[in-house]
This record gives sequence, structure tokens and C-alpha cells, in this order.
Amino acid sequence: MKSNTISLEHGAGGEVMQALIGEIILKNFHNKSAGSIGLESLDDGSTIRLEGLNSEYELVLTTDSHVITPAFFPNTNIGRLAVAGTINDLTVMGAKPLALTCAVVVPEGFPLTEFEEIIKTMDETAAEAGVPIITGDTKTVEKTALDSIILNTAGLGITDSPVRDSGLQVGDKILVTGTIGDHGISLMAHREGFDFDTDLVSDSAPLWRLIEPLLKLRTPDGKPVITAMKDPTRGGLANALNEMAKKSGTGILIEEDWIPFKPAVSAACEMLGLDPLEVANEGKAVIGVRSGFEEEVLSILRQHPYGRDAAVIGEVTPDNKGEVILRNRFGGMRYVDIPAGDPIPRVC
Amino acid sequence: MKSNTISLEHGAGGEVMQALIGEIILKNFHNKSAGSIGLESLDDGSTIRLEGLNSEYELVLTTDSHVITPAFFPNTNIGRLAVAGTINDLTVMGAKPLALTCAVVVPEGFPLTEFEEIIKTMDETAAEAGVPIITGDTKTVEKTALDSIILNTAGLGITDSPVRDSGLQVGDKILVTGTIGDHGISLMAHREGFDFDTDLVSDSAPLWRLIEPLLKLRTPDGKPVITAMKDPTRGGLANALNEMAKKSGTGILIEEDWIPFKPAVSAACEMLGLDPLEVANEGKAVIGVRSGFEEEVLSILRQHPYGRDAAVIGEVTPDNKGEVILRNRFGGMRYVDIPAGDPIPRVC
Repeated sequence: MKSNTISLEHGAGGEVMQALIGEIILKNFHNKSAGSIGLESLDDGSTIRLEGLNSEYELVLTTDSHVITPAFFPNTNIGRLAVAGTINDLTVMGAKPLALTCAVVVPEGFPLTEFEEIIKTMDETAAEAGVPIITGDTKTVEKTALDSIILNTAGLGITDSPVRDSGLQVGDKILVTGTIGDHGISLMAHREGFDFDTDLVSDSAPLWRLIEPLLKLRTPDGKPVITAMKDPTRGGLANALNEMAKKSGTGILIEEDWIPFKPAVSAACEMLGLDPLEVANEGKAVIGVRSGFEEEVLSILRQHPYGRDAAVIGEVTPDNKGEVILRNRFGGMRYVDIPAGDPIPRVC
Repeated sequence: MKSNTISLEHGAGGEVMQALIGEIILKNFHNKSAGSIGLESLDDGSTIRLEGLNSEYELVLTTDSHVITPAFFPNTNIGRLAVAGTINDLTVMGAKPLALTCAVVVPEGFPLTEFEEIIKTMDETAAEAGVPIITGDTKTVEKTALDSIILNTAGLGITDSPVRDSGLQVGDKILVTGTIGDHGISLMAHREGFDFDTDLVSDSAPLWRLIEPLLKLRTPDGKPVITAMKDPTRGGLANALNEMAKKSGTGILIEEDWIPFKPAVSAACEMLGLDPLEVANEGKAVIGVRSGFEEEVLSILRQHPYGRDAAVIGEVTPDNKGEVILRNRFGGMRYVDIPAGDPIPRVC
């Protein structure tokens, strides 16, 4: 925290944001836990133990504000991003989504037709996961005060076995549910007017139906097959894997050739000097799976349209604790660093 | 909805906002209920019935985004406003607050010292009500994109007898927990540089501890003494009373002389031609109380610092269904209209 004012990196999902959260937010919030997973875990949501509820169950609460610009982008809009994002935060915590909120801040002059389109998209996206949107808030501001609509969605879920991002164990396989970098690259291309001559679109999607069957899988001795989960949004796969390795106290070794990329994403990243591992995804999960169960998990994932390109990309190692190593096809290895921030701002 | 773009009134808590919500949001959200009170009730929050939980209990979920400018105002800042606002939404639903979220959108260049001060204030305000802040989100945007910090807080609560804003019954007394108009007038005076030569400050306060004892009160035949509750924020007392009357299908008769006002608020409203009934409050509740129990309720309220100026201001009538009538000291009557919007924008 070198400067004394907020910079864009403070909200970009990487190392600078972690510092802000640690040095200002966690330090000053004294009462920040209501269950087994609290704010200090910095997971995708936190849990609440409820008196009167069977003690196997915990509620999960999560929130996200979305400041993407423009609000409309190839194939969809901020409404899908917000609803899917919150459903996914609950999903990667292992929680069945129960209800969502919808809080809108909108500048005067915003077209009512676009506003209605966003609301319709939220409804459709929530319907995919069968989640009701039960409460909301609407605020307006002067057009000079804000450049585009901001959506906040909070979500409540319930689980009998929360999945943490810190649960990786040595030997686990690391899976992703599909191609990496689609959202960030498609958004940037759209915004900057690049024409990659492809139909690359955002991957924004609610993953509950895809992930739900995995949560029930148990090993013969009754342990959950899924050991850890995270959605690689801001900061991309690089940030998600680093958080998982650090919190789990293990190493992660990733095989570069195994990571699924759309050709347009690889080409764009090469041309623009971007690392696709640092680019935001909005419809993907990174999953830790007990060794020996990866084929079963893959075959379940691939039955769902959102999991068609699911792949094993690496495994959890006892060495290089807290670090992520990428091995290329020639056996060359490099550390995958925590990004300072997202290379493409305001994509979510 | 005459224009085809968003106007400031669309977020101002009055008639124009109700139209936006009805014609666009309620129409397009198909799945909007998870318990006995859903989005279509447009109450201060909605409820969730939970399988496995004693059926007397429901969860309550609520959300609010805060766009007040400036973020710091006499005595406190947006952090108190946001946390108190969400605690109060749960409180007036009759729900014990269990947990809050905190989602921040902040423009680059915002001073880190001010950011930390806001976080500290959120912590202090939540501590007053004993509520943990368990999860959050941090987003940054360019300084040209947003003029000030935006806070969203969602809240989860639990209740065994939800209080609706639609529960008024003929004969009930109408109470307010203190002086009306303090927040809006103090904010406007501060923002516009008016000097009313007073120490008028925002009333922003978390009301859970004040209201909690009232929720347990029962009549000799076991009915709740509190029949309806609402916090008169945007649109002020005028909007809150109109909503309560319309939803309850009753009339409300208010005695002008009984409404508690600080002299500075009355003077400022007279000078500026504002109706203090339309000005936002951020630490007050409007309460329907079964006739005969109003003295007991008043005496409980007045024991708490936030209820010192509590007063009976009128009663629920069988005639003038859905309308609010104000009677002045000379017996003259007038309708209290639903405000089109808040006369003072961006106060919450």
C-alpha cells in the first residue's frame, strides 16, 4: 500500500487488493464470523450456524457488486454476470442457492429499455439455477456521478458440507470445468473494437446445476470426493490457484498443455502480450478432486453443456508449498505468480 | 413512466420509483418468493422458509445500496448509514439480525484514510447491534466513472413472527420512535453550506436494541402488540404512512401537533419550502401498536437513547381507506400525498 489513495489495482482481485483487505478491512472488522467460515477466510462466501437447524447444516452468505462496462457485451449483459456470479460463489462453497437479492444503482439518462433487458436477463439466469430473487433496492444518481449501471447481488445458500478453497490435499487432481479466459478476452475485444474474426463470447453462466451432482460424491470410506473449489474470476486462474495453494499449504503443478483454451483466446493473448491465466472467467470452476475419482468427475461434468470442455490440468504436490508451478510441453517449469491486479479492468 | 430513460425520481423512494418497480422489476421477475413475504410485497425485506428449521421461524433477507454524497457528514459517514440501514430493515421486519455483507465500489483517488474511517465506522455500528459482518466484495473504478464511494450491505435475520408493513388494524395507534426529518435536513444543510446555527446531525442509528423488547409483547389473548412497522427513509414519514395505509387497507389519521420535530428542522423546512414529512430519516421507526398498549410501548422506547422522543402521532381509522390524513391544531385536515420522490436527492 504505497500510495495514500485508492488505485484501480485495489479492486482488481490480485495482490494489491489482498493487501487492502488485510491491512484495512480485516484489521478493523472485529466481529466477522457467524459459523465455521468467516470473513478472515476470504473464501467465496462465509457460513452461518443457525440455532434450531440440524447442526450438520450451515447457511452460506455471499455478495458481489458488478461494475462492468459496457453493461451490454457479446451475447448477454451485466444482469447475467451478476446473477451467475453470486450463484457461482454459493456453488463453489458447496451450497445450494436459496435466494438472491438485487440492488441497482443507475445513472439518470440510462435507457429504460436497456434497464428492462437487464432485469429480464437476471430473471432468466436465476431460473436456470431455480433460484428466486426475493428482495431488492433501486437507487439513482446524476448522470455526471456515474458512467454506467452498477448491480449488487447477494446470495443465501445452504450446505451440509461446505467446500473451502483451502481443502486441497497432496495427490488431489486439479480440474477446470472448461476453457479459460473467454470472458475477459471477449469483453476486451468488444470494448476496444478489436476484431479477432471469431465468435468468442463471455462464458458467464450459473454453475449450480453443473456442480450439484459432484457435491454428493463420496469415497468408499465416506469422504467428499471434491476437496476444494473456487471460481477463477478477477485475477483469473493464476489468482485462484495461488489462493488455493497458499490456503491449503500445498504446492500445485499445472501442465500448460492440458489447460483448455479457445484458439481465439490464445491468439489474442499472444498478440497483446497478456497472460491468459490472469484473465477473468465468469462461468468456470477450479476443482480439487481426490486422486482416482477424476475420470468419474470429468464424465459427470462433460454431460452438462457448461462442462463440455472440462479437463484435468494438474495435481497437488507436497513440495513447493503455497506455490503454483506451470510445466510446459518441453518440461520447462515456471512459477505462476499472483497477479498484481487484473490485466483488463472493469470486466466484472 | 413518461420518459424513456431513468430519471432521479426513479430511485427516490416515492411514486415514480414504485411505478418503475411495478412496471419493470415485478413484471419481469417470475420467481420472487421463498417464504411468506416475497418481493411483490415490497416490504423492507423478504422471508425464506427453511426445510429442517422449526416452521415457526423464517429467515429474513434484505439489501440496500448507499450513494449518499458527500460520504462524510456531520457526526458520521456512509459506513454508519449503510450498516444501520440494513439492521433497521431487518428490525422493522421483526427479525433479529444474524449477519451482514459489505460490498464496496470505490473510485480511484479516494483517500485511504477516509476508506479506513468508513470501515471502522461500519464495525462500530454493527457492534452496537451485536451483528457480525461476515463477507464482502471490493471493486474499484476510474475516477472519471464515479464521484464517490458506494456501499452495499445485505443482511440476514431470523424471526418467529415477521412484522409486515401491511398489518395495521382499525384502532391501532401510530407511533414514531423520535424526531422526524433530522437526517435529510442535516445532510442538505451540510452539503449546501447552510448554517442554521444549530447542532442538528443525522439520526442514523441501528434500532435493533431499541425495538427488540417490543417484539416479545403480547396481548392477554396472545396476539403481538406490534401490528406493523416500517422505517421512514426515502420519501420520509409521508411515504411510509401511505404505504402502510394502502397495504393494510385502512386509513391513518395523524395529529400534526403530536409529531416530534427538532426546532431546526421545522425552521429549515419553513425557510426552504420543504415538507418535513417527505424528508428521509435513518434512525427512526414508524410502529402500529394495538390500542391500549401504546403507553407501555412508549415507556419501553423512552428508556433507550434512540427512543427518548418517541410519541404517539395518530391512529388507524376505518374510513379513508388507503389514505393518510393530517389534522392541524385548529382541526383543519389535509391529505398527506405520496411524494413523487425525495425532495433532497442522494441522502442515503
